[in-house]
Amino acid sequence: MPEQVPFVDASFDTLAFQDFLDGDNREVRQHVLGVLTSPEFRYLKNPTLPEYRQQVFEWVRRIADEGLGGLAYPEEFGGADDGAKMIAVFETIAFHDLSLLVKFGVHFGLFGGSVALLGTRRHHEQYLADIASLKLPGCFAMTETGHGSNVKDLQTTAVYDAATREFVIHTPSDSARKDYIGNAAQHAQMAVVFAQLIVGGENHGVHALLVRLRDESGDTMPGIRIEDCGLKEGLNGVDNGRIWFDAVRVPRENLLNRFADVSDTGTYTSPITNPSRCFFTTIGTLVAGRISIASASVNAAKSGLTIAVRYTDQRRQFGAEGAPEQSVLDYLALQRRIIPALAATVAFDTAMKDLVRRFSERSEETAREIEALAAATKALASEHALHTLGMCRQSCGGAGYMAENRLGTLIADTDVFTTFEGANDVLLQLVARGMLTEYKEEFGDMNVWGTVRWVTRRAAATIADLNPVAPRRTDEDHLRDPEFHRDALQYREDRLLQSLARRLRQRIEDGQDSFDALNECQDHALAAARAWGERYVLECFQKAVAQVRDPALRACLDRLLILHGLDRIDADRAWFLEAGYLEGGKSRAIRDLVNRICREVRPEAVAIVAGFGIPDSLLAAPIATA
Amino acid sequence: MPEQVPFVDASFDTLAFQDFLDGDNREVRQHVLGVLTSPEFRYLKNPTLPEYRQQVFEWVRRIADEGLGGLAYPEEFGGADDGAKMIAVFETIAFHDLSLLVKFGVHFGLFGGSVALLGTRRHHEQYLADIASLKLPGCFAMTETGHGSNVKDLQTTAVYDAATREFVIHTPSDSARKDYIGNAAQHAQMAVVFAQLIVGGENHGVHALLVRLRDESGDTMPGIRIEDCGLKEGLNGVDNGRIWFDAVRVPRENLLNRFADVSDTGTYTSPITNPSRCFFTTIGTLVAGRISIASASVNAAKSGLTIAVRYTDQRRQFGAEGAPEQSVLDYLALQRRIIPALAATVAFDTAMKDLVRRFSERSEETAREIEALAAATKALASEHALHTLGMCRQSCGGAGYMAENRLGTLIADTDVFTTFEGANDVLLQLVARGMLTEYKEEFGDMNVWGTVRWVTRRAAATIADLNPVAPRRTDEDHLRDPEFHRDALQYREDRLLQSLARRLRQRIEDGQDSFDALNECQDHALAAARAWGERYVLECFQKAVAQVRDPALRACLDRLLILHGLDRIDADRAWFLEAGYLEGGKSRAIRDLVNRICREVRPEAVAIVAGFGIPDSLLAAPIATA
Repeated sequence: MPEQVPFVDASFDTLAFQDFLDGDNREVRQHVLGVLTSPEFRYLKNPTLPEYRQQVFEWVRRIADEGLGGLAYPEEFGGADDGAKMIAVFETIAFHDLSLLVKFGVHFGLFGGSVALLGTRRHHEQYLADIASLKLPGCFAMTETGHGSNVKDLQTTAVYDAATREFVIHTPSDSARKDYIGNAAQHAQMAVVFAQLIVGGENHGVHALLVRLRDESGDTMPGIRIEDCGLKEGLNGVDNGRIWFDAVRVPRENLLNRFADVSDTGTYTSPITNPSRCFFTTIGTLVAGRISIASASVNAAKSGLTIAVRYTDQRRQFGAEGAPEQSVLDYLALQRRIIPALAATVAFDTAMKDLVRRFSERSEETAREIEALAAATKALASEHALHTLGMCRQSCGGAGYMAENRLGTLIADTDVFTTFEGANDVLLQLVARGMLTEYKEEFGDMNVWGTVRWVTRRAAATIADLNPVAPRRTDEDHLRDPEFHRDALQYREDRLLQSLARRLRQRIEDGQDSFDALNECQDHALAAARAWGERYVLECFQKAVAQVRDPALRACLDRLLILHGLDRIDADRAWFLEAGYLEGGKSRAIRDLVNRICREVRPEAVAIVAGFGIPDSLLAAPIATA
Repeated sequence: MPEQVPFVDASFDTLAFQDFLDGDNREVRQHVLGVLTSPEFRYLKNPTLPEYRQQVFEWVRRIADEGLGGLAYPEEFGGADDGAKMIAVFETIAFHDLSLLVKFGVHFGLFGGSVALLGTRRHHEQYLADIASLKLPGCFAMTETGHGSNVKDLQTTAVYDAATREFVIHTPSDSARKDYIGNAAQHAQMAVVFAQLIVGGENHGVHALLVRLRDESGDTMPGIRIEDCGLKEGLNGVDNGRIWFDAVRVPRENLLNRFADVSDTGTYTSPITNPSRCFFTTIGTLVAGRISIASASVNAAKSGLTIAVRYTDQRRQFGAEGAPEQSVLDYLALQRRIIPALAATVAFDTAMKDLVRRFSERSEETAREIEALAAATKALASEHALHTLGMCRQSCGGAGYMAENRLGTLIADTDVFTTFEGANDVLLQLVARGMLTEYKEEFGDMNVWGTVRWVTRRAAATIADLNPVAPRRTDEDHLRDPEFHRDALQYREDRLLQSLARRLRQRIEDGQDSFDALNECQDHALAAARAWGERYVLECFQKAVAQVRDPALRACLDRLLILHGLDRIDADRAWFLEAGYLEGGKSRAIRDLVNRICREVRPEAVAIVAGFGIPDSLLAAPIATA
């Protein structure tokens, strides 16, 4: 059993809050917390790089020993066939060291997940049990020095040699070396390698193959060269490396052949006839990873907020003449940063629960939209976490800068969350493309011209006319009405999409290349994608709160819900003012109300972070002892 | 001689750009660069904490050996009596390791500067030469665990004992221990200690005294307890520590007695009769420090931008069908982040040059305003640096996350720039108070009631009436007109100040305590202070560019100048729209123009960063090799 979260006086029951956030899979979360709060998981103090890496590897093994690594794999190979449980494990680990999180995710999620998803029975039988037990540590060798976001143009080749029934894996240049590959520098024995599959001289695009990197004693295999990436800004418990392949031969069977195969004699076949769709199905492994990173981002933000709320609640500085010094969390400027971040964190949490549910129930028909939701929430949540953690550090002043209080580490570790598993800008552009096609086409692959025509035709009909009175309404009933918030975000999304489509159409009609046209409207496309993601998060939050029956908890959540809705409008009030959706007076009234609700929430801030349910031994920050 | 910056093809001469930025004191800058590019200053690769601290200490000594530490001290003690030269040295060091920068600043600036500024001839004669040579390493013991921003309520005491003619320095509780003190954990032999001065039972407020911490062999003196703060988020080459004083006795002469003294028999005298003014004069040492930190922030941003511009210029990813991949700096979203940051960095640079000049020429009359300018630019520039460096890291993707490319270190090191030498929020509030009093009262000490009345009376007369056509003008001549930009920022500043004063007056007239009234308007006060600072920076930039005669350089700077003005309006367009200063169409036109100017500047971006003049061996990032 994990430690009990200390009792905090609040109008609501903090355990009920915790229940609300836990959602499904409470049991597996408690199991993970039980493991993480055991003494072996105590953080190392100022370890050397080798010590840190070794410790993290042993932590991953401990989690594997508990049977918590392979829950997403089929039951017959020791798993539970339950991707949602796997994500619950992952996001709970995010309360602990984020190197552990990433190393766990690389091995069980990216590597093991590729074998499970892209492989077939022969791969499952041969590898999955050893992956689940960590007997076969692996890595995910997709990114190259020269190609990160643009996976389609990777340069590593896998040429089929029918004579020997082998693939020859080769790194044609230094810019084609695999780079930043987690687990590669030290521990991985096998890699899922993404390479251009060339059969009989024909390039069939990027496919995934299993390649052994090291033998069981850890020695590098012939033809493999690995370089250590060395120190990084953060996540130094993960051994990232660079890999070169010098005409490395692997048996034909090492092709992960669920979506495409090559026969002995060298015939390429795929049930998916569209090569581009085959490519996007192949890199679909990343969807679970993106959902996981988004969820973990939310929990990393919770750690930072718990530390910052506890410290700023107790910290006193200045005060009225003759009065005792004031808690710094009573200062408006600080409240204005911390309290909306609390609300947003709870909002993201509900969205991730919703998305995990959708992901578990996904079908051919919903897959495209879920991919877009994964991309959008990954981008928004990772940005939210990084921004929130930076703000928490600053809110804690000098104390926040001390390593023992963990905020600096959390910032450095999460900084790359905005980059890996898809750079945020690139993901948001994929979302915008998805919006333009209503997720009817293959994700990331569309005929811009056709869809743009379609969206512009449709748009005029769907965007509600502005009520001429609404932009001026400043009565509190209206401002606090969740429907107003939802309508505002929906209106913004529709308008941005419509105007984006119109601008693209204009350019394409003028003969501009669609790539250039999209680049000229890139800021617009990113804004549309953000608007779509924010509307989704708000809707999830509204739906989740609507189901809460406990009146005290409901009252607290209602305040956070209203705050979040208003804060999102306030944060983008420039857009709403430009669009005529708000007039100046209403915009000011919203700001005043945001300030007021921050003050209303403030007394329960300590209880809210208690509701996050992070055990003290995981928080571990001396300034955050409750 | 430092290395030559490589030749870059541009319409202007990069050396002329460098001249423009160098301003005064080119010679001393070149001297510092010559030292920093010598082989001994090569960065350590993955040092241990003790190695790193020792190396930084030796670097500081090398700089002292060059006679570059004490330039601000009087000539007779080996200095040059030239604060501007000292700041030029400091900001040039900011191109190198920022631990070196901070350790240098703590010893020569905060410690030595206090002795020079707060001490009298006896202190100068006894200590300054040894401080300038680093024979006597020192620290600046102001902050306590319980009091950082609120220096006035520090709890360390210095009680005068007339019987022995000594002061007794004492730490009454753990929250009164000195904390985060740079140089204290290992190297400082002496501290300037800020303590409540108590003479004959009467507390005269915070004063500074010299206290020996260690003997020359490094052993701690009796009654002194020092604890190592250990690892921090960044700046780990600086040994920060905590200090407790257990009734430590120092001779009466150790009081830095320029602004207040205690006679043998225990009579307190000060030429400054107002105790509050005496306090603010005492902590005036911080003004030079704040200017220095602001200047160093600007140069740290230059390092990050140089790395990011060079990498994103060369990095290619995606592209139009059939075309080669496109330089990522050609993507609008990236341009939109990097290019305005370039412009803002140059703008801040001109402001710092202006402020250093004002500081050198300061008088009793201008001191208050210079303090406010130091506070505002420190807050804005440190925030700019941190934000810019984070953006640079993300722009460089995975490569940006590798420690060897230095961006992570720059982020971690500069994060605390927003906190130390005055937390930014606190500084901006001081600025707001200064604005309310027109710097006529003691900085930070005013009768809010009186001044608020005064400002509101004055305000109505000075704020120009809005031209009814202006909010709609979208012709390019107007939008590109620097006068439009200056007027907009001036208008915002005036309006924010006027409305702040009005809101405060209302509250105070309703009987609210002035502290509470200010807190209720805290966001407003911070906005007013930012507006004031941004207008100042823009004006400095405009004035500096107006003096440039070289047509090619002038054209480049004009673009940056216009971009900066428009970007500042665009960044706060919500305010301008709310205030009716802009209408929606004009706001959109400004955004389009910002995008367009980013594209105009893009081809010269590589040349602009060459103009920053940072030697390659200091940049040291493999991805930034020109």
